[in-house]
Amino acid sequence: MPNDIAIAALAHLLGDRLTTSEADRRLHGQNETYYPNTPPDAVAYPETTAEVSAILKICHEHSCPVTAYGAASSLEGQHLALHGGISLDMSRMNRVLGVQSEDLTCVVQPGLTRKQLNENLRATGLFFSVDPGADASIGGMAATRASGTTAVRYGTIRDNVLAVEVVMADGTVIRSGSRARKSATGYDLTHLMIGSEGTLGIITELTLRLHGQPECITAATCRFEDVQQAVACVIATIQCGIPMARIELLDHMMVRGFNAYADAGLPEEPHLFLEFHGAPATVAEQMASFEEIAQDSGARGWKAATTTEDRNALWAMRHNAHYASAALGQGKHIWPTDVCVPISHLAEAIAQSQADALRLNLTATIVGHVGDGNFHAGLSVDPNDVDEMARAHTFTHTLAETALRLGGTVSGEHGIGIGKQDLMATEHGPALTYMRAIKHAFDPQGILNPGKLLPPVTQQEAAE
Amino acid sequence: MPNDIAIAALAHLLGDRLTTSEADRRLHGQNETYYPNTPPDAVAYPETTAEVSAILKICHEHSCPVTAYGAASSLEGQHLALHGGISLDMSRMNRVLGVQSEDLTCVVQPGLTRKQLNENLRATGLFFSVDPGADASIGGMAATRASGTTAVRYGTIRDNVLAVEVVMADGTVIRSGSRARKSATGYDLTHLMIGSEGTLGIITELTLRLHGQPECITAATCRFEDVQQAVACVIATIQCGIPMARIELLDHMMVRGFNAYADAGLPEEPHLFLEFHGAPATVAEQMASFEEIAQDSGARGWKAATTTEDRNALWAMRHNAHYASAALGQGKHIWPTDVCVPISHLAEAIAQSQADALRLNLTATIVGHVGDGNFHAGLSVDPNDVDEMARAHTFTHTLAETALRLGGTVSGEHGIGIGKQDLMATEHGPALTYMRAIKHAFDPQGILNPGKLLPPVTQQEAAE
Repeated sequence: MPNDIAIAALAHLLGDRLTTSEADRRLHGQNETYYPNTPPDAVAYPETTAEVSAILKICHEHSCPVTAYGAASSLEGQHLALHGGISLDMSRMNRVLGVQSEDLTCVVQPGLTRKQLNENLRATGLFFSVDPGADASIGGMAATRASGTTAVRYGTIRDNVLAVEVVMADGTVIRSGSRARKSATGYDLTHLMIGSEGTLGIITELTLRLHGQPECITAATCRFEDVQQAVACVIATIQCGIPMARIELLDHMMVRGFNAYADAGLPEEPHLFLEFHGAPATVAEQMASFEEIAQDSGARGWKAATTTEDRNALWAMRHNAHYASAALGQGKHIWPTDVCVPISHLAEAIAQSQADALRLNLTATIVGHVGDGNFHAGLSVDPNDVDEMARAHTFTHTLAETALRLGGTVSGEHGIGIGKQDLMATEHGPALTYMRAIKHAFDPQGILNPGKLLPPVTQQEAAE
Repeated sequence: MPNDIAIAALAHLLGDRLTTSEADRRLHGQNETYYPNTPPDAVAYPETTAEVSAILKICHEHSCPVTAYGAASSLEGQHLALHGGISLDMSRMNRVLGVQSEDLTCVVQPGLTRKQLNENLRATGLFFSVDPGADASIGGMAATRASGTTAVRYGTIRDNVLAVEVVMADGTVIRSGSRARKSATGYDLTHLMIGSEGTLGIITELTLRLHGQPECITAATCRFEDVQQAVACVIATIQCGIPMARIELLDHMMVRGFNAYADAGLPEEPHLFLEFHGAPATVAEQMASFEEIAQDSGARGWKAATTTEDRNALWAMRHNAHYASAALGQGKHIWPTDVCVPISHLAEAIAQSQADALRLNLTATIVGHVGDGNFHAGLSVDPNDVDEMARAHTFTHTLAETALRLGGTVSGEHGIGIGKQDLMATEHGPALTYMRAIKHAFDPQGILNPGKLLPPVTQQEAAE
């Protein structure tokens, strides 16, 4: 085996925290979506930054691939050890290293999940805002540039990471950023690492921005005759500057999924799920402004969820969209895909994707963080049905091309991973050359998550 | 002359838009601060991206330095052609290429200034929020990672640039980002370019986020017995989550400067200048919450500025801080410096800098975007007074080291430029190696703004 020497050296370093058992390898080869199980050659469980550094030194020396593993909730296969080698399981580096309440910051290890962090913060009156639905690890969220339902108000993970400690391919440990809110000193390596999908370095520590728990939180739902009306309402809301904390669109198929999965009993029409944060008079004013816009847009069935229980139930339902889609697909796998477009083109992009699903005879739900112009389609697929998989591929790539045509991007938050590499050249053109140059400068051996994010070099590129 | 061949080729390309006149060269060698006039060998006035590309191809071929020039308002000498070559004056690329009101975005050329942009946007009900005081060019603001008084609410330039077109060192034109609010596709070259001070590429187009004009804007001022009280008020305000649009601290010396420069008639005590944005009830609620905190912190002399005239007068005064400092220094040059610290350490950092100024017998004003933990000191210096310049150097470097000791950064918004290179290794440690690797990969000849941002390679680094 090509990685045997590296694995032997790692076993010497880590003892029983380096495993090659079939069960552990298969566990680390699993994913939430349609990719086949892809086991690594071995799984390493580092406990300190120094250990991560030592692991990378060994892997660098022996050209052994290293793929970071957080909570395995990535949706484009980012955590799968596609070229074998080591799955670097960060779950034992899951401590909160410090909370600086006065500064609204905290320092955490990457294996901590967002729910663990918020549990830990409960007594402080502060919270970590980024909420992609899954209980993702903070390191994984940073590596894949996660966002989610609250990004429209509090920003994506990109806006909420102030600093990182990163172990580079050869084991060098660097720090980028500080606990200060902003800096103008040098190249922005922090944001270069965020979204690099573990291909430029392994994040071993993060300094995060926190937010004060709002004095008042109110959620609400309403529904519309068609998606166009719902999107018109969203556009008007954003344009009026109402600082929505959440504004989520569910199409009629997604609502049908919730009815199938959780007996939600909702009319099968497009819905908006909303949340307002602030001081009491501020929230009241925001809700009144929104209601006025919603009525003008044809909304009906306005329901406020003022108690914590009602609110939690609403968002728990929303966060089960993946499983509700699966329920609708009668237990098939879900192929989740996402795009992001300028909000003025949102209705067109959604209509196009609904028409494409019909044309391709696919069951698809649509749900989106529409305040950002970002939406997901969840396709029900049987990975063994070659024809259906081909149609799903056509759907996702048509949707991506639609997003690009409308001035958007092929992914707002799921990333590139394995699934969208063939769209990188289309989206980025000559900029791809400079991404490759960074990868080569930072990881000349190509040991960090090989086979992800950057597409293979084409013959034309190789000839240049 | 080493750059004669390149200049001859550029003259052929640009005709009379390439000048070598003494007057034009000296004009482009000026700066707002204490650096001596540093004329380039020639000044080029491109009008299109294609011309910028052609210019860089020529300069790349002949290893001729190229330094971008916007509005010359940078404060660490970023626009000075330190190693000669071409000053690339972007002032003729100053058009608004499009405003997408529905999306709250616009596309502009880099030579446009922020005031020109906001003038252009007036009829749309939208505005561009980043306000560093000077009427800087948008390209220059992006290149130096500018922020300013409104960053506490609307973010720095980093948060307000969605996409860039950049001409790379060899003339290749790339695009990074899109009009979509967010993306998770590939390395974040947009944020790598922002703050790179023209050393990685020349920004030729920017897609910006805009914000809706708030329905209601109210400004106010209050004063405190000492800086500690004022900062305690700021910390409590930020912790309570009051979304301040502006919260600026002026120390007693800065107030004395305003009295000297503009006959402001203010009591010579630390002041806060404030602004609240939002819907009417929201602003009223914010102001009431702030007043309560301010009173608890010992504030007095509360004055609201509700009319547009009063508000404009207040911020015009604030924006003249540089000239007010000069007035206090009786016409001396101003050596402006800035740092940013976690807000919990702000009072300590300011007290330390006031003590340092006294100890070093320097006249210093302090003014800051304190909601971000960012503040400026303006030192009155005579560039011909070797001893005073040495003391000013000691002051700025002591302040920078204080900021680092307190978990902050050596610059929140002025950047590195010429003046702070010797602090890069201290702030960034081993990360500096990776910054150099990017520079080398993107600009192997080192033609882009040589002598800025990255310090010269040390003997130790060279030996490695």
